[in-house]
Amino acid sequence: MAIAWSEKASYVEVLSRPPSLSPPVILTQDELKKIAAYKAVEFVESGMVLGLGTGSTAKHAVDRIGELLRLGKLKNIVGIPTSKKTQEQAVSLGIPLSDLDHHSTIDLAIDGADEVDPHLNLVKGRGGSLLREKMVEGTCKKFICIVDESKLVKHLGGSGLAMPVEVVPFCWKFTANKLQNLFEDSGCVAKLRNDSKGKSFVTDNGNYTVDLYLKKDIGDLQVASDAILRIAGVVEHGMFLDMATTVIVAGELGITIKNK
Amino acid sequence: MAIAWSEKASYVEVLSRPPSLSPPVILTQDELKKIAAYKAVEFVESGMVLGLGTGSTAKHAVDRIGELLRLGKLKNIVGIPTSKKTQEQAVSLGIPLSDLDHHSTIDLAIDGADEVDPHLNLVKGRGGSLLREKMVEGTCKKFICIVDESKLVKHLGGSGLAMPVEVVPFCWKFTANKLQNLFEDSGCVAKLRNDSKGKSFVTDNGNYTVDLYLKKDIGDLQVASDAILRIAGVVEHGMFLDMATTVIVAGELGITIKNK
Repeated sequence: MAIAWSEKASYVEVLSRPPSLSPPVILTQDELKKIAAYKAVEFVESGMVLGLGTGSTAKHAVDRIGELLRLGKLKNIVGIPTSKKTQEQAVSLGIPLSDLDHHSTIDLAIDGADEVDPHLNLVKGRGGSLLREKMVEGTCKKFICIVDESKLVKHLGGSGLAMPVEVVPFCWKFTANKLQNLFEDSGCVAKLRNDSKGKSFVTDNGNYTVDLYLKKDIGDLQVASDAILRIAGVVEHGMFLDMATTVIVAGELGITIKNK
Repeated sequence: MAIAWSEKASYVEVLSRPPSLSPPVILTQDELKKIAAYKAVEFVESGMVLGLGTGSTAKHAVDRIGELLRLGKLKNIVGIPTSKKTQEQAVSLGIPLSDLDHHSTIDLAIDGADEVDPHLNLVKGRGGSLLREKMVEGTCKKFICIVDESKLVKHLGGSGLAMPVEVVPFCWKFTANKLQNLFEDSGCVAKLRNDSKGKSFVTDNGNYTVDLYLKKDIGDLQVASDAILRIAGVVEHGMFLDMATTVIVAGELGITIKNK
């Protein structure tokens, strides 16, 4: 899968770890996430307006930005959080915050993804905050996506895991059925997301999430995107098409940086 | 304007009032609305699942359906309300209700509109419930739109009044700016809708409404629709394209019925 993914790279930089006689260290998935996150933060410069992502990988980036501010290595950063959770994390780290109403242009956003295809299209939102992420990351000069290598797929939906769609709670079953029917040819199954207590998961915007599980490729992604958005009841979906300008992948063999 | 509007009619039936020697009666706008509404209810049959519209014109239709049920002239009707307000009205009239989760196909919906163009495309939502209306009316076998003649326009937006867009409250100014920029060439001005107390108007779905005021035609409506829906932060817009199967217009000269 990694080979297929690399075929489309417009520019790939592999920063392998130096050869060593010591036995190989097995890195955990979380350590890989942290390596990708720290690499991304190297692109942050003092004075930037930064989109701060949400999720287990982005959390490491936000932590690192907070650390560099504390050490005085970064100055005059303004963070635009993509969720209430990230907002709380940034506040606890002392990162100055603002919002899109006051900064309609963002210099750089750093965020994770659930899937990355060979064209740098993404699936996001399994962490639950796709709408705010899309608003912030859709207005960036540069958007660095950070993932461990398990997130690379041949086509979106290819992991077999959820492709999330944020929907209004009103008659959500009706909307879920419309979504399932839309991708019937791809073997789509639509399920309402529940929280850890078994209740309907509610987004930061008071909406529900319908997760789509796909058995096959859904074809032209822009066509699929418009078809989803045309369903009344859909607020937004988790496909981030043509938005990431750079993807940093941390794997057992080192870091790969892929640019648009 | 009425002539331009009629030119495109695929089928127009004009039910003029009979000539009379008595002086002409000047009908109020509300009386015209009531005439259109009563005419639409003639298409309702016992046993139907009915989409119940929202607003000052649709209110007359819902009242009339309640009256016919009470008189025993209609039986076994199931109503699907398009707003909390209509739900309350229908309950008070004793109309049995259900929702889209239980009735994914609706026989007939009757609702008003704020604008009707010569192709029977509509602007709706000045009354505040465009999303639920679109969900219900998008799943009907037949959708009768009822208006007084003041609602006829050459092109959508042509009345100079609001074209509503439902948006998430999060960073609504940012979304409003994106909408205004999208239709910059049409002289668009985007304004947040306030309620009667001067606070942000909140929809049944907990969202805000941004009203677009247009100086010129926005061109291809399907292209405009997709462009609006692609803006993250937009939930739904008030253009109802290719949805009405019949429009009933009440005017000083009688009733006009226009079918697709």
